[in-house]
Amino acid sequence: MSAHIVLTSHPRKGEAASPEIHWGAATPQQRGPIVASLTNPVHRNAIGSHSGAYAVYRALAVASGQLQRDHRPDFTNTAPAEAIGPHPQWSDADKIVSLDPWGHMASSAFAERVAAGVDIRPTIAVTKAHINMPELRAAVIAGRLHPDGDILHANGDVRVTKAAVDPVWYLPGLAKRFGIKESMLRRSLFEQTAGMFPELVTRSDLKVFLPPIGGMTLYFFGDVSRLGRPETRVACRVHDECNGSDVFGSDICTCRPYLAHGIEVCIEMAQQGGVGLVVYNRKEGRALGEVTKFLVYNARKRQNGGDRAETYFERTECVAGVQDMRFQELMPDVFHWLGITRIDRWASMSNMKHGALAAQGIDVVERVPIPDELIPADARVEMDAKKAAGYFSHYTPDATELALPKGRGLEE
Amino acid sequence: MSAHIVLTSHPRKGEAASPEIHWGAATPQQRGPIVASLTNPVHRNAIGSHSGAYAVYRALAVASGQLQRDHRPDFTNTAPAEAIGPHPQWSDADKIVSLDPWGHMASSAFAERVAAGVDIRPTIAVTKAHINMPELRAAVIAGRLHPDGDILHANGDVRVTKAAVDPVWYLPGLAKRFGIKESMLRRSLFEQTAGMFPELVTRSDLKVFLPPIGGMTLYFFGDVSRLGRPETRVACRVHDECNGSDVFGSDICTCRPYLAHGIEVCIEMAQQGGVGLVVYNRKEGRALGEVTKFLVYNARKRQNGGDRAETYFERTECVAGVQDMRFQELMPDVFHWLGITRIDRWASMSNMKHGALAAQGIDVVERVPIPDELIPADARVEMDAKKAAGYFSHYTPDATELALPKGRGLEE
Repeated sequence: MSAHIVLTSHPRKGEAASPEIHWGAATPQQRGPIVASLTNPVHRNAIGSHSGAYAVYRALAVASGQLQRDHRPDFTNTAPAEAIGPHPQWSDADKIVSLDPWGHMASSAFAERVAAGVDIRPTIAVTKAHINMPELRAAVIAGRLHPDGDILHANGDVRVTKAAVDPVWYLPGLAKRFGIKESMLRRSLFEQTAGMFPELVTRSDLKVFLPPIGGMTLYFFGDVSRLGRPETRVACRVHDECNGSDVFGSDICTCRPYLAHGIEVCIEMAQQGGVGLVVYNRKEGRALGEVTKFLVYNARKRQNGGDRAETYFERTECVAGVQDMRFQELMPDVFHWLGITRIDRWASMSNMKHGALAAQGIDVVERVPIPDELIPADARVEMDAKKAAGYFSHYTPDATELALPKGRGLEE
Repeated sequence: MSAHIVLTSHPRKGEAASPEIHWGAATPQQRGPIVASLTNPVHRNAIGSHSGAYAVYRALAVASGQLQRDHRPDFTNTAPAEAIGPHPQWSDADKIVSLDPWGHMASSAFAERVAAGVDIRPTIAVTKAHINMPELRAAVIAGRLHPDGDILHANGDVRVTKAAVDPVWYLPGLAKRFGIKESMLRRSLFEQTAGMFPELVTRSDLKVFLPPIGGMTLYFFGDVSRLGRPETRVACRVHDECNGSDVFGSDICTCRPYLAHGIEVCIEMAQQGGVGLVVYNRKEGRALGEVTKFLVYNARKRQNGGDRAETYFERTECVAGVQDMRFQELMPDVFHWLGITRIDRWASMSNMKHGALAAQGIDVVERVPIPDELIPADARVEMDAKKAAGYFSHYTPDATELALPKGRGLEE
């Protein structure tokens, strides 16, 4: 290890980064691989590194002597378990700006360069699994779901294809999506994180950034190869992580019940010959994080007048400065990646998600609200507040109702 | 906004960072607040910023004009819903190195400084909730759990206290825990993340780092105020995130079944007058991330000879370079924070977790393995491999058994 520490890099005069990246090019060879590996800094053409925030753990592994700093992954047998794409949307630089459409093909599409010693790593992995959720078994027993022995088994097992997707941001495209200058975006990303990645400001020639944030997981129900064909009917739920409900079943929100309902809708669609898709985004507490989320819970439950819909968003704003940081503007990228232009059944009431799809030209045919009987006791406050703010619903509560405390107190 | 961008900061000659941090001091006033806010850089005495990786979303919010860069949180009514500590372990600088023991009291313990304009934020939030999991309802119906109308209700609702904890790393303590030089740790954290936070190397005077990684969530069952008393019996499961099983019930591992079983053990302990605790760590795929995890699944299921225990760890090492990056060495910090010196019922078979507790002087009285009937179909490979590697079990499989393919193929 050299004694000299390089605090940041600078563009080499007269030289473009090699390999060059032509975002939105029609073939992987024209687009070029994304190289964010640390084993040979000369090959790098992106800011950041692989595996998102888990890079910090990788750094600990090197620091503690458990991982060789020049370890090169062996990707034998890891190729996608189902082919995805290419789709026409991949060759439009404006349609996909927050993931690498070729990310699951990295080791095959660039096999020659990998063999020549360039450390190219996939940012997407596609595998298969069986899942089994108690709610789906209950749906079978209640007669809402019918086992077919293929997609859904009698014991409640569901066959899925699933994909993990790490974020890959094309900074000029991201700036365009938000209608801001790229230089402003870069500077904010650097300064407002307290100095993550000085290359954001010193390397304007590097256009691709791998941010250290959580990515997404996709669960496919039915035949993935049918995606991208206009005749294929698609059912979908886009779900933003809520650990307290998704795992532990906290009753203050509708997250897990709506997710389980969305999966039911997806299974039905697959059984009818269409494709079901659940997109699970790692954006805990509206991307404010769980500490902020719990602080807001306390403020809601202790405020004068009790926990009620009319002050629901205000309590979040007091603590976080905004109501929401999920930036649904980037959410439609995954549909462009999958070649989806129409969603026939959309298991979501969110006006923000719906608006983001519309802005990207993706049609939503039918919106499927959560069935009333699935809304947990303490989640009425959230549901009313969201309906009043524009959520899709057949019923909008009035001011009198929004002022009623419907949430439990902290000590109840 | 100034035209000048500061790439990194340097220590001011002859001046210590203000406020000073004396890690391990017995009172919050002697210890000093941790200031990682961006609203006034002069006050900062830590590297990184609040909310872990969600700082990236906060930066997007500023860049897109949705969040004022000088927003100051209003923490009215957000204080902890239950008191935790102080415990004697808090004033030993070596016992807690990866969280701030005063992190939940930040706005009260440092109220004067907050009033004077210093932007001090909590890194821990404590609230209360009701949770309800289908597995717990099933345990009530099966007669394993008995509703008491207080901790466990007849409808399956469980009253819990919960806490979200963001990581706060005291770098000298972390280096000591791993037996490495602090300078080596800082340099690896900087270089092996592709340049996150140059202050890691330019500001050796700043000893505290808020890494942009996921934190943990604690679920308490029973009376939290009894923790720290020698007579209080404690049941515990430390669970490392596995989204595929915890949320979707993938049958390739035992994660959600063991978590649900651990919660049963915790409820029983609370009903007997003790305290149950679930620690949920955001360390997806052994802290390798989900992309790596899915690549490994494919390699396991496609290898010659099929998916079997004898090659279980090897397939991970081929891709990731190591078997595991969770660094259980830091895991015991949360027990020191809660004043826990003895765990009476420990719902885990992991030799790594058990060894980490022993190294920190925390006694484990009884180890509770997952009941055999809860192990899903495709999880036998993992279970056998772990037992052979030293997991706590009454049965260790032999070489013949480890060579048997027990996992499904990809197309099954």
